[in-house]
Amino acid sequence: MTRPGPQPGALHTADLHASLGDPVLDTMNFLNEVTHRYPEAVSFAPGRPYDGFFETEQIFDHLHRYLDHLEANGASPGQIRSSLFQYGPTSGQIRELIADSLRKDEGIDVPAESVVVTVGCQEAMFLAVRALIRGPEDVLLVSSPCYVGITGVAALLDVDLTPVEEGDKGFRCEDLEAAVLAERARGRRPRAFYVTPDHSNPSGSTIPLETRHELLELADRYDLLILEDSPYRLVSPGRQLPTLKSLDRARRVVHLGSLSKTLFPGARVGYAVADQPVVDDTGRTGLLAAELTRIKSMVTVNTPSLSQAVVAGMLLSAGGRAADLNVETAAYYGDAMRTTLARLAEAFPEEERVALGVRWNEPSGGFFLSLTVPFHADNAALERSAEQFGVIWTPMSYFYPRGGGERVIRLSVSYLTHAEIADGVERLACFIKDQAARP
Amino acid sequence: MTRPGPQPGALHTADLHASLGDPVLDTMNFLNEVTHRYPEAVSFAPGRPYDGFFETEQIFDHLHRYLDHLEANGASPGQIRSSLFQYGPTSGQIRELIADSLRKDEGIDVPAESVVVTVGCQEAMFLAVRALIRGPEDVLLVSSPCYVGITGVAALLDVDLTPVEEGDKGFRCEDLEAAVLAERARGRRPRAFYVTPDHSNPSGSTIPLETRHELLELADRYDLLILEDSPYRLVSPGRQLPTLKSLDRARRVVHLGSLSKTLFPGARVGYAVADQPVVDDTGRTGLLAAELTRIKSMVTVNTPSLSQAVVAGMLLSAGGRAADLNVETAAYYGDAMRTTLARLAEAFPEEERVALGVRWNEPSGGFFLSLTVPFHADNAALERSAEQFGVIWTPMSYFYPRGGGERVIRLSVSYLTHAEIADGVERLACFIKDQAARP
Repeated sequence: MTRPGPQPGALHTADLHASLGDPVLDTMNFLNEVTHRYPEAVSFAPGRPYDGFFETEQIFDHLHRYLDHLEANGASPGQIRSSLFQYGPTSGQIRELIADSLRKDEGIDVPAESVVVTVGCQEAMFLAVRALIRGPEDVLLVSSPCYVGITGVAALLDVDLTPVEEGDKGFRCEDLEAAVLAERARGRRPRAFYVTPDHSNPSGSTIPLETRHELLELADRYDLLILEDSPYRLVSPGRQLPTLKSLDRARRVVHLGSLSKTLFPGARVGYAVADQPVVDDTGRTGLLAAELTRIKSMVTVNTPSLSQAVVAGMLLSAGGRAADLNVETAAYYGDAMRTTLARLAEAFPEEERVALGVRWNEPSGGFFLSLTVPFHADNAALERSAEQFGVIWTPMSYFYPRGGGERVIRLSVSYLTHAEIADGVERLACFIKDQAARP
Repeated sequence: MTRPGPQPGALHTADLHASLGDPVLDTMNFLNEVTHRYPEAVSFAPGRPYDGFFETEQIFDHLHRYLDHLEANGASPGQIRSSLFQYGPTSGQIRELIADSLRKDEGIDVPAESVVVTVGCQEAMFLAVRALIRGPEDVLLVSSPCYVGITGVAALLDVDLTPVEEGDKGFRCEDLEAAVLAERARGRRPRAFYVTPDHSNPSGSTIPLETRHELLELADRYDLLILEDSPYRLVSPGRQLPTLKSLDRARRVVHLGSLSKTLFPGARVGYAVADQPVVDDTGRTGLLAAELTRIKSMVTVNTPSLSQAVVAGMLLSAGGRAADLNVETAAYYGDAMRTTLARLAEAFPEEERVALGVRWNEPSGGFFLSLTVPFHADNAALERSAEQFGVIWTPMSYFYPRGGGERVIRLSVSYLTHAEIADGVERLACFIKDQAARP
């Protein structure tokens, strides 16, 4: 494994696991580097939550509130100390509070035992994919373009991934069905389908209600599980469509959630809802959540007690309703999205838009939107945009596991002020018009 | 995947990933169940840190101290808020503080860039194994009996594991060399060797200084990396032998660490030190730590900022020396170990000990010791011990990846008072003598 060279103990990338050669683990590097090199540029790249509503001192109130709650529920001083200081149960110590908020916020009514508390939604994805994909004959389908987190998990676990491309109007069940049939014809088992039904990252698309029903029916017909990712619902303005999980009558859906956007990114608390029964050879039945927990015991052992205590304190402050804590932030993000769309419309009057071949979708929430441009929106274009026009964005091609999206840009609106958005869209329009005019 | 049955959406274990059928993910279940059923029993089973020195309110002091430190180092109020509230860098935000404490506490002198902050040491193990094991031809060697965490990681990643059994006097380099040669003869690549050189979990054994030098030499000769796990050093009394990493001149050692035992279990902060250069096809060189970071971005994205802030505050309170914070706890655990050994010597006078075939090792630190008994120390024996004698222990066979340790018991001393130890050893002696006398 050591190659000739001046450095003792030098390794070569060819000797490391193949995932480290997967472009998905690198895509964000170039973006970070560009951002670092052009600090004055307006950046539509990061999907960071806005932190203007957060005050450091609140953390102490939240922790105290959770400890008071434990005391009110009869915990002794020793138990309270342990609940914060010690390793907790691997499945999590605030499962009841999360199940309660899912009932109140999302109409998802599951027992607390079907919840596993994780280190962010990323770990929940990891656990679900590891449990469900048995070997090389199993296929994970993903709505594409898709969140890099799921592509990355697949790479780490040598899991084969089949993209189901979104059309101009978003996800279509017939495309999923075609992919399932094609994989079956190849002798493989389509096992699960990963999708973010609401305001997805990266495209911003949302699956209509009727399609949700169709999707559940299709999953049942083809014996497919659905991994439903849901980070942007409660931070979007207005009433959301029902989650797939709340419509799920046949336990087809593993719901993946995050409290990072809604409550506190720095706590890194997410969860999986996995109420599927699992039967073993002896006929004993448990829940899929218990299997995910067993895997978690070998990944992070448990989610930090401290993180769980803080988000529990936050939930308790709102009677368990995370939605109530996000009224202000959801309105803020909604304004940012509307402002971006309005500025785009101003910058590209309809005639010019059509002539140039520029178009975009109009998400009603979430952090992201898709903008189609009349040129290759690649790293070279990004570099030119940052250097000469002072505006940064994300090439949508980063999010296609098997190529695609070469003429599309992802814009993130979550982290910018209205003034920055106005300025940024103006710079972006200059760049697009200039780039389109190049030979 | 769905079998006939009354439950909608039921899965079968045979359809899940094989790791879920690995006994290592189940061993602890029986133990937990027994502990739950016999709450009055004295339990030598859990390796939990003692929490008597911890006070809940200290957490607030630690957080404030870290925030003050950021302010003193010129951070703006916005940056301070972000450092706690936002996602942080994947590699960690307290790498300098950890590198500083490694220099002061352990004589490990590495740049901060070679440190990756992880969600407990478990995640560090996961990252190291995933990065280093390329495929089925690569072998991970482990000192056996070994910590279940590494066996679990191997199971999750379908990594082949080769145990190198400890002899009566602990680990021997010649056994490792024989295992390396045998694997090479099978056409496989011995890639890394996982070991806990100090007061290991489960056996309590420590590798002598001379053997440490031999091991490093052997690693160099056979192009092997060493994964050095080190959780019990600073919580053991007296001066410890040098870490392998501090003796490592050829960058053969990836050092895995935990702040759980030394500072705060509920924060779940661990780290990997990986200063190996990694060269890619273009000749560019990075550090193995950067590769581990890329994998981490797909497992937990980042270690909770909140957890990092609290342990940073703790380190700052002691001028960066974690050892100084553990003087009292190390003395406490040392007393517990000495008390246990003294009580065992009283319960089994030499003549009786020899007649029965009972013996134990005498660790100078750590949480665990090994006790050999004249019968199969299996689940049935454990059940009888708990029910009829009110004492719980861990079958050592749980820690052998390929069988072994059938007549050995692991005793943990970390979580009991002296009175409980005295009582527990008395019960244990009664059980052993009774069980040995059975036909």
